[in-house]
Amino acid sequence: MTLPGREKRGNIEGGIIDCDVHNAVPSIESLFPHLPDRWVDYMVESGIKTIEPNYYPKGVPLSARPGSEPAGGPAGSDLGLLRDQLLDPWNVRYAMLNCVYGVQLIQNREWAMVMASALNDWQIAEWLEKDGRLRASITVSTRDPGTAAREIERVGGHPGFAQVLLLARSEMPYGERYYWPIYEAAERHGLPVCIHAGGSAGNPITSVGWPSYYIEDYVGFAQAFQAQVVSMVTAGVFAEYPGLRVVLAEAGITWLPSLMWRFDKDWKGIRRETPWVSRPPSEIIREHVRLTTQPIDEPSNPEHLLQVIDQIGSEEMLLFSTDYPHWHFDEPEDALPVKLPPDLERKIFSGNARALYGLDDATSER
Amino acid sequence: MTLPGREKRGNIEGGIIDCDVHNAVPSIESLFPHLPDRWVDYMVESGIKTIEPNYYPKGVPLSARPGSEPAGGPAGSDLGLLRDQLLDPWNVRYAMLNCVYGVQLIQNREWAMVMASALNDWQIAEWLEKDGRLRASITVSTRDPGTAAREIERVGGHPGFAQVLLLARSEMPYGERYYWPIYEAAERHGLPVCIHAGGSAGNPITSVGWPSYYIEDYVGFAQAFQAQVVSMVTAGVFAEYPGLRVVLAEAGITWLPSLMWRFDKDWKGIRRETPWVSRPPSEIIREHVRLTTQPIDEPSNPEHLLQVIDQIGSEEMLLFSTDYPHWHFDEPEDALPVKLPPDLERKIFSGNARALYGLDDATSER
Repeated sequence: MTLPGREKRGNIEGGIIDCDVHNAVPSIESLFPHLPDRWVDYMVESGIKTIEPNYYPKGVPLSARPGSEPAGGPAGSDLGLLRDQLLDPWNVRYAMLNCVYGVQLIQNREWAMVMASALNDWQIAEWLEKDGRLRASITVSTRDPGTAAREIERVGGHPGFAQVLLLARSEMPYGERYYWPIYEAAERHGLPVCIHAGGSAGNPITSVGWPSYYIEDYVGFAQAFQAQVVSMVTAGVFAEYPGLRVVLAEAGITWLPSLMWRFDKDWKGIRRETPWVSRPPSEIIREHVRLTTQPIDEPSNPEHLLQVIDQIGSEEMLLFSTDYPHWHFDEPEDALPVKLPPDLERKIFSGNARALYGLDDATSER
Repeated sequence: MTLPGREKRGNIEGGIIDCDVHNAVPSIESLFPHLPDRWVDYMVESGIKTIEPNYYPKGVPLSARPGSEPAGGPAGSDLGLLRDQLLDPWNVRYAMLNCVYGVQLIQNREWAMVMASALNDWQIAEWLEKDGRLRASITVSTRDPGTAAREIERVGGHPGFAQVLLLARSEMPYGERYYWPIYEAAERHGLPVCIHAGGSAGNPITSVGWPSYYIEDYVGFAQAFQAQVVSMVTAGVFAEYPGLRVVLAEAGITWLPSLMWRFDKDWKGIRRETPWVSRPPSEIIREHVRLTTQPIDEPSNPEHLLQVIDQIGSEEMLLFSTDYPHWHFDEPEDALPVKLPPDLERKIFSGNARALYGLDDATSER
């Protein structure tokens, strides 16, 4: 709901860019046309009805935004509703689809690979070729980064694909060389890598073991993202792939200044172990990392949020997102509940994403 | 070194209180008078020369503060040097000894137990009874919290013991009920629990698996502390033990505002799972948690540090510490490299610790 007195933000010139929208697979059968027969048989014979993670439990109707669930599938599975509820009313020029299906949770390497390919082909057919405002992330499985790299090669040239999607809770920290084939392929295609909240790789989900309560999982995601940023910078991912950009989606943003301060200080003391980190980590982060705004982990005092944005020390890092159709959808007026300088507002709601993804209206309908 | 123009802080009325000083065991034989014969035999026959973690490798002379290593043992093992280098020159009214020996790394339950008891008895004999300015943490092993509670019962009445020492990297998050016997005993004796950087419990030291580089370990400690705070609040430790206070030592401080914002926001959404968390987590944290200042994860812009102190929203939470004799010792002038309001400075350098530990000069020489 737009509260009285809040400035409407959808009228940013050229439209806003929503960097985290979740489309969904209506049913597993939707993918069958894009799968080898042997894997269709495997799923039918095994009685596998879905690999959708349980993001919208039936008993929790508010997990999805009311009214976003179409008759034939889960919330996010209908392009018409996406147009009616998001793209048209909010003047969204581009929306980045992050289809968080269960592909990344499949352990079987070959099955994960064919499901990732099927999902990507389904996104081209059912979304990217139907609305020029849509862009999407390439889904890959990290069970085999070499295969993931080949999938990026296979579909990375399609103009609708704008980044590669990984999930935050990984088998190993994302700086490890195991993952570098993915970065090499992404950089070659000019595609950022988006690390989105989610994943379930078997490690305890806190660095001190398994917790008991859901809120420990949820609050703890910020720490998983922190570990990923530290790992990628430390291991030299950006030294090896200077063109690579990383987008942290649903990570929060307010932890970033503290992390950069600590990281810079410790780097001064022990950088001899990582000579390829040849300048303060905060500089590398500001150049290579971007963050979506939703859900904003905002303080109760709006002044503190402005301080954090100042402490981040860059106007180029934040990317507006709604998280449609999830329940905690942020309307543009709620995404950063403070009055921003107009230049910065334009960057967050449009300019930063245009620069990152190379979007411009001359080629937008390509 | 005191730089020109910095305000001397040692002249705070009544002296400053240093909440994190590391004394050390000169040699394993120092503990033999306090151990059962069977365990002395065990160590002698097994050729165990030390259980000291390798904090001061011989090849890294700067790991300890130059000049802090006495002839007969590691840095921190000599009371005379501690007096000459810390207590006297800096007008330290009280110093809190956190003896981080390897007791917490021993897996054998009985051996860990007798070593903890020996260490505590050795601290009484060699430190607490020799200088009225010293206070110390009770060392316990978390291999058996029931035994740990009995050790707190055994020595918790000694006026020199002022808190119980745990290490940040634990088997499970510290909110888990496994640990509650420790909190019950600590609260009964009016002793805070100090969670200090360190530990090695077997979990991957990031929430996304094992990293490769030391800086990932070091920067990542802030995330371990974040997980511990979230766990203890969420599991209801402070609802069950309302008198309990927790001190985070060598944790950094700048991550705290962001954690409280995220924690409060998520709590609003999903608090029905934890009805005992009956008010915003930030309120519980401000009441029950304290943090030592060293090493301060300070920004390059001092104004940002003042913003963080304001964002923390409490003047009662910070406790000055030097970390003597570690290399990154903070002199009082360096601990918070900003000009503080005089009232706040007195609280951080003395008043907060006096209130927390019940220190006052009428009883200080008890």
